[in-house]
Amino acid sequence: MKLVVLRLGHRKARDKRITTHVFLAGRALGADAGVLCGENDEAVLKSVSGVAGNWGGRFPVKHSPSYRKTLSGLKRRGFRVAHLTMYGERVEAVAPAIRRKARGRLCVVVGAEKVPGDVYRLSDWNVAVTGQPHSEVAALAIFLHELFGGKELAKKFAGARLSIVPQARGKKVLAAKPRGNQKRIYSRNAQL
Amino acid sequence: MKLVVLRLGHRKARDKRITTHVFLAGRALGADAGVLCGENDEAVLKSVSGVAGNWGGRFPVKHSPSYRKTLSGLKRRGFRVAHLTMYGERVEAVAPAIRRKARGRLCVVVGAEKVPGDVYRLSDWNVAVTGQPHSEVAALAIFLHELFGGKELAKKFAGARLSIVPQARGKKVLAAKPRGNQKRIYSRNAQL
Repeated sequence: MKLVVLRLGHRKARDKRITTHVFLAGRALGADAGVLCGENDEAVLKSVSGVAGNWGGRFPVKHSPSYRKTLSGLKRRGFRVAHLTMYGERVEAVAPAIRRKARGRLCVVVGAEKVPGDVYRLSDWNVAVTGQPHSEVAALAIFLHELFGGKELAKKFAGARLSIVPQARGKKVLAAKPRGNQKRIYSRNAQL
Repeated sequence: MKLVVLRLGHRKARDKRITTHVFLAGRALGADAGVLCGENDEAVLKSVSGVAGNWGGRFPVKHSPSYRKTLSGLKRRGFRVAHLTMYGERVEAVAPAIRRKARGRLCVVVGAEKVPGDVYRLSDWNVAVTGQPHSEVAALAIFLHELFGGKELAKKFAGARLSIVPQARGKKVLAAKPRGNQKRIYSRNAQL
């Protein structure tokens, strides 16, 4: 599946870290690209691109001045749209239908504080992760997990300069040599 | 299961929103209480308590000046400790053992930027949600989802003043009358 995360209504002063978390969680949990709507924010775009540069895979992120144009462009390319909102249908009820009907192309809309009413209408699904107020980052994570059925946790990130070897205690990071595929141990925190 | 979320190394200027999201996502996804370590932050504690006051259930949150004291206190009361870190063992591999061995009492430690080395040693499990850098909010959400096996999505919140009726489009919020159990429709956004 080709999955794009569209972050709505970003405001630099308020949302820098949350929006960065939205894109990084999206990337780590199976999304393929990000679109930042609202204020343009080079710091967020750079930070997300930097992570993808070091940790592998492709995760292009760009700013769009208009979510309406972006959504209609994606729809023309065959994307369906799922909007995460606490008012929507429960994720556990609709995820199977979304997986089936999206046919490999899905845009997930993640709102900030105030979501314009037309987003509800432009979306094919309005999806709630619990009906409780919590976090768009957590909602996106659970949505992707339900959509991909846990397979996203095993996602491979091609061409990574850095990768982690899971440890019960301590840290083990592998780093690729600048030119070459061979990896060496980059850091191991023996004190832990 | 009795589950406490311990947020480490909170800094008011930097972490206010992320820490609030950590606690709210914890509450929405099955945790029972929160402890804020690092700087004390009344705004975070009030905001989380306010959500619990309106949306039901009990979710006490308090500040602790020392995570070491809090962890040893919880351990004396029979709690096991799972620390979320990208360097740890994969959640999909260890969640079943944690569920079994925690025997109903678990503290989940959620770090901020720099986690002191002893946290890795004081924890019974160091748990990674993917080995990728992303978001402690997303990591907590996926961890709880794996731990509770999806049942957390159906959690009931007793005594809620506000609750949402899932809708394909629009918003439907029920509000309890100040004194009484009867609920009425509080808002329905017909334009959506």
